[in-house]
Amino acid sequence: MRVKITIAYDGTGLRGWQRQPDAETVQGILEELVGRVGNAPTRVHGASRTDAGVHAEGQVAHFDAPDHRAPEEWQRALNALLPATIRIVGAEHADPEFHARHAAAGKTYRYRLDTSPIASPFLARWCWHVPAELDLAAVEAGAEALRGPLLDQRAFATRPEPGREHRPLHDLTIERGPELEFRFTGRSFLRFAVRGMVGALVAAGRGQLTADQIADLARSGDRARAPAPAPPHGLCLVRVHYRPPGDLPEPTG
Amino acid sequence: MRVKITIAYDGTGLRGWQRQPDAETVQGILEELVGRVGNAPTRVHGASRTDAGVHAEGQVAHFDAPDHRAPEEWQRALNALLPATIRIVGAEHADPEFHARHAAAGKTYRYRLDTSPIASPFLARWCWHVPAELDLAAVEAGAEALRGPLLDQRAFATRPEPGREHRPLHDLTIERGPELEFRFTGRSFLRFAVRGMVGALVAAGRGQLTADQIADLARSGDRARAPAPAPPHGLCLVRVHYRPPGDLPEPTG
Repeated sequence: MRVKITIAYDGTGLRGWQRQPDAETVQGILEELVGRVGNAPTRVHGASRTDAGVHAEGQVAHFDAPDHRAPEEWQRALNALLPATIRIVGAEHADPEFHARHAAAGKTYRYRLDTSPIASPFLARWCWHVPAELDLAAVEAGAEALRGPLLDQRAFATRPEPGREHRPLHDLTIERGPELEFRFTGRSFLRFAVRGMVGALVAAGRGQLTADQIADLARSGDRARAPAPAPPHGLCLVRVHYRPPGDLPEPTG
Repeated sequence: MRVKITIAYDGTGLRGWQRQPDAETVQGILEELVGRVGNAPTRVHGASRTDAGVHAEGQVAHFDAPDHRAPEEWQRALNALLPATIRIVGAEHADPEFHARHAAAGKTYRYRLDTSPIASPFLARWCWHVPAELDLAAVEAGAEALRGPLLDQRAFATRPEPGREHRPLHDLTIERGPELEFRFTGRSFLRFAVRGMVGALVAAGRGQLTADQIADLARSGDRARAPAPAPPHGLCLVRVHYRPPGDLPEPTG
């Protein structure tokens, strides 16, 4: 029986999603516990390989349960064993064909900045501290340069990657609350691309990069000229989108 | 020169405010750093002896600076050395007669509950997880029983304490947001009294204690019959009130 689970985690101190020898990762911890509860080694497949220090409110994964426990029983059993920083927030039966990563139609990531002069100790785990008066009009102009069908994320990824060049965003919103919050929704993201785009937007807000320069980066895919990516702890995987219900907006532009 | 500082801290992992041998406390860390920066052993006096695991947004303290550095320079120097979980959020000159604890006219504490069925990993540091459908009318009736001039906090403190019997609250509010939040303002609080009152209000919400029983406890000061206090990590010292500006409301009732 295939089980689909939704997982929230505080990534502080974790080495990310993907199983690694001798390192605490979400996949590693989950596989160990699913194996222990079900009494059989079991692989857990995640939708997104979040990096070390990145958080998740809505990571999705699936596994083939080695017994006939109901999904809610799996949820209870795993939550009883998991550290408080990792919670199974949903569990359900899935079609035997369902694959958390392959079936994903898109993902939404949030990135948060604490722009106050003195970093709040209560936000330090979740926000990048940028104690600067950012020019928000310039940030918005930079975001506009990232929207559109021709975005080549390779300019913002930290390693040269082969593959599709155009991975447009389906949505990019900026919210100015107590913190400055970016939301990126797209079909797929290259590794580090969200953090790279945030790094570029913050550089725009600091007057170090113009919207035209961001547009050039976005079209060229040339990472040599991109500013440093934002640190991992401001990033959170908010949601993985599946069809149906087709809740992924159309690409921008 | 006397310096008044306002301090925010994430109390997770700290042994509270008060200096102790071989334990990380806010006072201990601050005294070590003020001494290092000023090159002379210096005592730091806090307004509230917050307990192990309790947080602060607005703890206040004073010290006599061993040099002529301006308060803002003290703030910068200390923030450069403090761990990210402790921040000096304000610093100013104080009258030589000012004493952070003796001059305090009152304090406001906040207590937060996460009442969702599955504890959020993002609230676990700041909220007591109470996965129950609390009867909010009963919680409000219990709070009403705590308001009034005759509150004897000894029923809610975990140790018998001598001293004044009537320590009324100046304000007690309940806010229902994504979390359930209590705010207690009073001239002074016995040790553990806020956590004891929260323990009683949660017991009321669970149907384990009536408002009349809370009123009896509040009048009698008899701690033998009080429910267990709430855990420390939901508690935060929000603000210490000083006169002027006389911002402490009149006692309730």
